[in-house]
Amino acid sequence: MVQPLKIALAGLGTVGGGTYRLLRNHAELLATRAGRPLRVTCVTARDRFRDRGFTLEGVRWYEDVLNLTMDPDVDVVVELIGGEEGPALALIEKSLERRKHVVTANKALIARHGMNLAKLAEKRGVTLGYEGAVGGGIPIIKGLREGLASNEIHSLYGILNGTCNYILTEMRRSNRPFDEVLAETQMLGYAEKDATNDVDGFDSAHKIAILAAIAFGTGIDADNIHIEGIRSIAPMDIRFARELGYRIKLLAIARRRKSGIDQRVHPALVSATSPVAAVDGVFNAIMIEGDPVDRVTMTGRGAGAGPTASAVVADIVDIARGNRNPVFGIQTTHIKPLPRVPILERFGAYYLRLSIPDRPGLIAEITKALGDRDISIETVLHKNLAPGQATPIVLTTHATRESDMIQAVEAIRALGGMTAPPCLIRIEDV
Amino acid sequence: MVQPLKIALAGLGTVGGGTYRLLRNHAELLATRAGRPLRVTCVTARDRFRDRGFTLEGVRWYEDVLNLTMDPDVDVVVELIGGEEGPALALIEKSLERRKHVVTANKALIARHGMNLAKLAEKRGVTLGYEGAVGGGIPIIKGLREGLASNEIHSLYGILNGTCNYILTEMRRSNRPFDEVLAETQMLGYAEKDATNDVDGFDSAHKIAILAAIAFGTGIDADNIHIEGIRSIAPMDIRFARELGYRIKLLAIARRRKSGIDQRVHPALVSATSPVAAVDGVFNAIMIEGDPVDRVTMTGRGAGAGPTASAVVADIVDIARGNRNPVFGIQTTHIKPLPRVPILERFGAYYLRLSIPDRPGLIAEITKALGDRDISIETVLHKNLAPGQATPIVLTTHATRESDMIQAVEAIRALGGMTAPPCLIRIEDV
Repeated sequence: MVQPLKIALAGLGTVGGGTYRLLRNHAELLATRAGRPLRVTCVTARDRFRDRGFTLEGVRWYEDVLNLTMDPDVDVVVELIGGEEGPALALIEKSLERRKHVVTANKALIARHGMNLAKLAEKRGVTLGYEGAVGGGIPIIKGLREGLASNEIHSLYGILNGTCNYILTEMRRSNRPFDEVLAETQMLGYAEKDATNDVDGFDSAHKIAILAAIAFGTGIDADNIHIEGIRSIAPMDIRFARELGYRIKLLAIARRRKSGIDQRVHPALVSATSPVAAVDGVFNAIMIEGDPVDRVTMTGRGAGAGPTASAVVADIVDIARGNRNPVFGIQTTHIKPLPRVPILERFGAYYLRLSIPDRPGLIAEITKALGDRDISIETVLHKNLAPGQATPIVLTTHATRESDMIQAVEAIRALGGMTAPPCLIRIEDV
Repeated sequence: MVQPLKIALAGLGTVGGGTYRLLRNHAELLATRAGRPLRVTCVTARDRFRDRGFTLEGVRWYEDVLNLTMDPDVDVVVELIGGEEGPALALIEKSLERRKHVVTANKALIARHGMNLAKLAEKRGVTLGYEGAVGGGIPIIKGLREGLASNEIHSLYGILNGTCNYILTEMRRSNRPFDEVLAETQMLGYAEKDATNDVDGFDSAHKIAILAAIAFGTGIDADNIHIEGIRSIAPMDIRFARELGYRIKLLAIARRRKSGIDQRVHPALVSATSPVAAVDGVFNAIMIEGDPVDRVTMTGRGAGAGPTASAVVADIVDIARGNRNPVFGIQTTHIKPLPRVPILERFGAYYLRLSIPDRPGLIAEITKALGDRDISIETVLHKNLAPGQATPIVLTTHATRESDMIQAVEAIRALGGMTAPPCLIRIEDV
């Protein structure tokens, strides 16, 4: 008789509850696939007596999180508490030290402490699974680390935050401003009350930092990411983008350059016919370009109880089957840190919206400010609604260096008369 | 010092040559990822002295394929000879019997003999990898068997043959007939001289049979697949489909029904806004729907030396890392064969193009033939170019049973006067 895999589950919130239900509802299927039963032996959560719609019968309850790691009846500890320090980190460290496998969906924690935890897991000969940390139900960690293990990865990019993608999609569909759509999104439960982590790009940054580590074998560098969120995107930018044949998406990008790793998170104009433009609503998508596979794309729900639980339990099945993979795709001793490329070195096209007064000669001065820096203009959109009225002028440029573009925008501001700050968005050729 | 993984490579054609080059060109990267060097110790191919653009220095040559399996200096045998019987099958059988791991990209062979080979691999405690058999470089076998292992799969469908997708894409873009585009595709090397296997749907059928086995745990049943290819698709069907808001794609479909597994390959009209419609050219795409992941999509190049070698070597890396997964996702003793649902039980919408003479009352008779069988019409396209001239009438129906639709079409034929056979294409709501 095969031994069941014994699981300690810490956290019974959205993802924890989903994981518990999945392990129970699909118990037979999972036992067949894993080759042995997957049994939750103990749990911990904030409130023992909260009604979660399921019972915890036959499962030991711990008040103190760390006591989970002392239970000899535990092979795997599943951390779904959240928070990048505190009890979540202590639980994972103690579990690994005590030779328990660990599964987590905690992107902030992995982005911050993943490398140290990987070393610890290696030393203790146990697995640290974090499939649920990136891309929700999309098996992107496995796809990249194992499925594309034979490739030299050149770049990966995509939409890693479903909340932002939902907001941008709704703004486009209903032509409403950010604040209004955010409030609605919060009411629907697709955004948290404090939406900073999502809409200001930090969540995407954690995820791209993790993916970059696997793709390039360079370790995680979550502090050296250029991050911009979507708060400054106006409905008219979405309209102008459409008129120009683009859509606006919050992209997370990691590229191997000669001088290091170019990793960043920011809104971008992408061609309306590109695969990434077609990814709408709460869906995530990751495009991976490598040699010799060329391009592989994976799409799916990037968050939510079901998709994340799917990833968490896939990690558990892997552990039950006895599969062991290097946490970030290679042994930690082989990781070679590489510098990150500053955003000012970006070379690409730009979208620039200026709110200017109707002043004779001003457009000539603006285009001169660009031309002085060898920035060549691709298109100009300017509809003067009424003489004397401030109207937006929208320019797109050919590829240029970001530092030149920033200087040009400063020079344009210095011309005076702007009725609103300029809006500069990168155009990504994806 | 870790032991290298010793590889015997059988076949040095397109994929075999690509695999050899990949193992050589990425040797250092692969050793780091696999945790040990991957070394080709011996090879066999049809012609020893053909110029392949690389040398076989330091590698033992075997004239007789089966002698590879006798070499004690071999851990993994990679079969890239092709053919579903003969030397390829003998090589895999002998290799497994002699406790060598096997990696192959041979979809026809796996579709035909996969279950027996899985039993043999299980008995001998070795791995049978076939990631390259489906979806080229897309890690779909791993994604389904491991990444989505926690899901009850409801359905999977997609574009599994790049040649057909390229032909249909070109027909749409250039408004040319099938024969002309096929000839061009053959000239470009995207289709074989004998294109039957691709354009008549057999290749897609092998692939969907393999995926269905993993998804539903029911074994492979490659003989019970309804298969239609793309030869009968006319440029005007592609145009009419576009006018109606659809595109025509060769779909491979496998769905879990109450009465068994619904598996089929046929051209289908899909909404122009569906993700599958956006997959053009030689690209493949697979959509997987399951509980609790909802929908996951994977896209990439479905064939070619590079993408297929990417998959073959990913399997080798997995073996080198010591990962062992049940060949079809569960132990063969747990496989429960299920009946396949006959195509006549399909329930869905249809596109019907009729070449009819301009005869008063005929359209009324046609719609009556449909109405008599409770088939309700959604749209009618009919442009009578000139009085008295035979012109096509195109109808789309609401969902109905295939057996009723077939009877209605027979009744319509019996009305007489058709100047060409009716063209019936399923509309899939994907």
